[in-house]
Amino acid sequence: MNYRMIVRTLSITLRIVAVLMLPALIIALCCDENSCSAAFAVTIALMLILSLSTDIFKPRKSTFYAREGFVITALTWIVVSLLGTLPFYLSGSIKSYVDCLFETISGFTTTGASILSDVESLPYSILYWRSFTHWLGGMGVLVFLLAVSTFAGSKGDSMFIMRAESSGPQVSKLVPRTMQTARILYMIYAGMTALQAIALLISGMPVFDAVTLSFATAGTGGFSIKNDSIMSYTAAQQWILTVFMILFGVNFGMYYLIIMRSFKRVAKDEELRLYLLIYFIAVALITVIVLPSMEGTAGDSLRHAFFQVASVFSSTGYATLNYELWPQVCHILLMMLMIIGACAGSTGGGVKCSRFILLLRSLRVEIDRLLHPNMVRPVKMDGKAVPEDTVRLLHAYFVIYCIVAVLATLLLSLEGFSFETTVSSTITCLNNVGPGFGGVGPVENFGKFSNFGKLLLCFVMLAGRLQFFPLLILLSPRTWTKAPKQKIN
Amino acid sequence: MNYRMIVRTLSITLRIVAVLMLPALIIALCCDENSCSAAFAVTIALMLILSLSTDIFKPRKSTFYAREGFVITALTWIVVSLLGTLPFYLSGSIKSYVDCLFETISGFTTTGASILSDVESLPYSILYWRSFTHWLGGMGVLVFLLAVSTFAGSKGDSMFIMRAESSGPQVSKLVPRTMQTARILYMIYAGMTALQAIALLISGMPVFDAVTLSFATAGTGGFSIKNDSIMSYTAAQQWILTVFMILFGVNFGMYYLIIMRSFKRVAKDEELRLYLLIYFIAVALITVIVLPSMEGTAGDSLRHAFFQVASVFSSTGYATLNYELWPQVCHILLMMLMIIGACAGSTGGGVKCSRFILLLRSLRVEIDRLLHPNMVRPVKMDGKAVPEDTVRLLHAYFVIYCIVAVLATLLLSLEGFSFETTVSSTITCLNNVGPGFGGVGPVENFGKFSNFGKLLLCFVMLAGRLQFFPLLILLSPRTWTKAPKQKIN
Repeated sequence: MNYRMIVRTLSITLRIVAVLMLPALIIALCCDENSCSAAFAVTIALMLILSLSTDIFKPRKSTFYAREGFVITALTWIVVSLLGTLPFYLSGSIKSYVDCLFETISGFTTTGASILSDVESLPYSILYWRSFTHWLGGMGVLVFLLAVSTFAGSKGDSMFIMRAESSGPQVSKLVPRTMQTARILYMIYAGMTALQAIALLISGMPVFDAVTLSFATAGTGGFSIKNDSIMSYTAAQQWILTVFMILFGVNFGMYYLIIMRSFKRVAKDEELRLYLLIYFIAVALITVIVLPSMEGTAGDSLRHAFFQVASVFSSTGYATLNYELWPQVCHILLMMLMIIGACAGSTGGGVKCSRFILLLRSLRVEIDRLLHPNMVRPVKMDGKAVPEDTVRLLHAYFVIYCIVAVLATLLLSLEGFSFETTVSSTITCLNNVGPGFGGVGPVENFGKFSNFGKLLLCFVMLAGRLQFFPLLILLSPRTWTKAPKQKIN
Repeated sequence: MNYRMIVRTLSITLRIVAVLMLPALIIALCCDENSCSAAFAVTIALMLILSLSTDIFKPRKSTFYAREGFVITALTWIVVSLLGTLPFYLSGSIKSYVDCLFETISGFTTTGASILSDVESLPYSILYWRSFTHWLGGMGVLVFLLAVSTFAGSKGDSMFIMRAESSGPQVSKLVPRTMQTARILYMIYAGMTALQAIALLISGMPVFDAVTLSFATAGTGGFSIKNDSIMSYTAAQQWILTVFMILFGVNFGMYYLIIMRSFKRVAKDEELRLYLLIYFIAVALITVIVLPSMEGTAGDSLRHAFFQVASVFSSTGYATLNYELWPQVCHILLMMLMIIGACAGSTGGGVKCSRFILLLRSLRVEIDRLLHPNMVRPVKMDGKAVPEDTVRLLHAYFVIYCIVAVLATLLLSLEGFSFETTVSSTITCLNNVGPGFGGVGPVENFGKFSNFGKLLLCFVMLAGRLQFFPLLILLSPRTWTKAPKQKIN
């Protein structure tokens, strides 16, 4: 294990996060939010001191492998989450440290679940930071590091980091160099965020709302700066958010292809097609089920259906109405969408559409094999054979996903809330959506859980965002022992 | 596809089921249950006519393959279920045909979920037949066929049938010949059922109760002949049932090993160890959680905990008390036990302990591979490497399991019952347990569902009992086309 390289990465990350916190400090200073100014200043100073003091551990060699990639990813997310809480805590905006941690992890993991019942009472600088955590966590803290620093060595080891932080079954570089790929991703990301902010400004939204909502939408997070989420914004603004929620749930590689004018490859992309197909089917189903019982015009109903499905499917978690009141079948449908999730390589959460495509295709291959044991067919996607290792890892991912979901539900049920509250809390946190149903519905919050429940959900959110393997490998004793002797069968 | 062989198998099966229905007819005659006598006589006659009339299709060749094995299994279960309803329907004991179908499939699949609110009003012969369906379905209709007929050809093709109807990740023959294996299994099964009936008789239980309960316990079914399930029986009788529920959840291969005096192999069996470990841990947890709030002596509480955990874990589904009133965490714990299920090669349902062992071990292998891509290690069980094909098929099984569970929950939620009712109905039917929670708790029944919901759950019960593949292969269009040209990569 290249310990020095791990420390080095953490050190650079802290420096970058400190710089990224500066706008929040400036807002606090401009708005005369004194306790917040102090909180941000102290946090920034602390991060810089930690960063500089660990600078003495210069790495002896810069090479590292998959193991280091996973450990770096897990540790970075834990350290950044722990330090990211400080503005909330030191400014006194959120009293309990566990609550601060929940809110921060919910932010970075782009879950958007909140323990706050009155968001509007928070100072501007804190609201800004809260929304910005979504933006940074959405594309990834370490991808940002790769994009802005000269960290990536010449040997392309940084691919191990990119792979560990990414959220799909397969990671493909847009261009040969990892660093260049990270830069292109962040440029597309920033460009689309700006585009959304401009669209919202044109629709007449105040600057602060437009910026924070754009951050939260881009990361498919879901923190709003209003107590009623998105309900009080205009219909046009809700439509703009709907469009951008869906756009941010698409693989960013598609936007690169569009820039490169490879429209055919975009049109043929199987994941994108499934994503849009599921979206429109779900909107149609919800409309049919909900329309007869809804107040307001048919246009309103359609808008709510398009918005709510986009919000849940892209794992954002905004609400334009209390969908808790929809019939039971809509609850299950929305929970299914939470689990399926957006596209791989997007900022969205969930299992991801491409994983479901691969899972279903691998089933077909297995059933064929059952009938014709000698017939060997690979699992294919986008016309290419998917390596067997990828399929096996995907199955492992799926099993871990189910085990974590069930165990978390069991532990959370100790809190004694209703079955729907317990199950949907786990699902919504594991898939980084935000609100669930029952006691954690769109007009409720997570403040009702005990510290045990909140910490459990913090772990679930992190596990879901990091797709399990980094945390599992960090916690596995075997990671910290020397590699076992290789056996070849 | 060897169609004639499929017809031939169905024909023999019907003849056997007709013979097995004779005791019910005799009971009906003895008890002067006239409408029942007529119903059983008509059903038996119909089965014999169908059987004899299809006898003209003599198979041209007796060989068949995996495909035929799965299709035979699926068709046999569907045909036997459809005809097994007739005694209920023709005697007028259950008015609606869909209700009859639900009760019959619940019987054969050893689920034990009932649409009846007043079981005690049923005639003796009908109660006998209802419990007997558990016994026949428990070890398997086709395994019975293999055990009693000379059907099994010399080439051992019948192994394809045994494999298709069996419930574990791997099927091992106890002795080289399939037919002999089936005979040994049924002899152990019948012997243990008799042993239980004798134990219950000694405890002072009436003969009819002892016989029907022994059938229902042996198949880990759960139909009782009392409205209050097992609540009104004595503590001693409840303990006897507890012991036998656990015994019938064990792989029957273990009993063969005991008869062969291979005690060491039994003691070292990893699945058996895990099964007992989970059982005692679950009993301990339930006791700790429930004890403080329970009425009655600590002995009563312990008995209920041992009984209820055995009932749910072995997928039987009896109740000695309304465990719906236990705290929420007990509900989730019991649902987890339903999903884990008993041992492979037992009459119990659920995913099975051995599958979980293999799933967890395959995870470890995958995580190791992630860190050391060149290290190739097989998944091991009981000291032996498990073939890769078995592990892949297991993963496919698990994915199908989850997909069926989620889709069934979605469709069932159209009925509009509470989230817990909907989810637990699916879980309890998919794992062939019986009662669930909420609206389908131990003192409730499934009569509240519409015909759509009942038929859906019929499918779920069958899918769970047959472990998906036979039904999937029956319904797959590719099964009915010629085998595609073989591709070799």
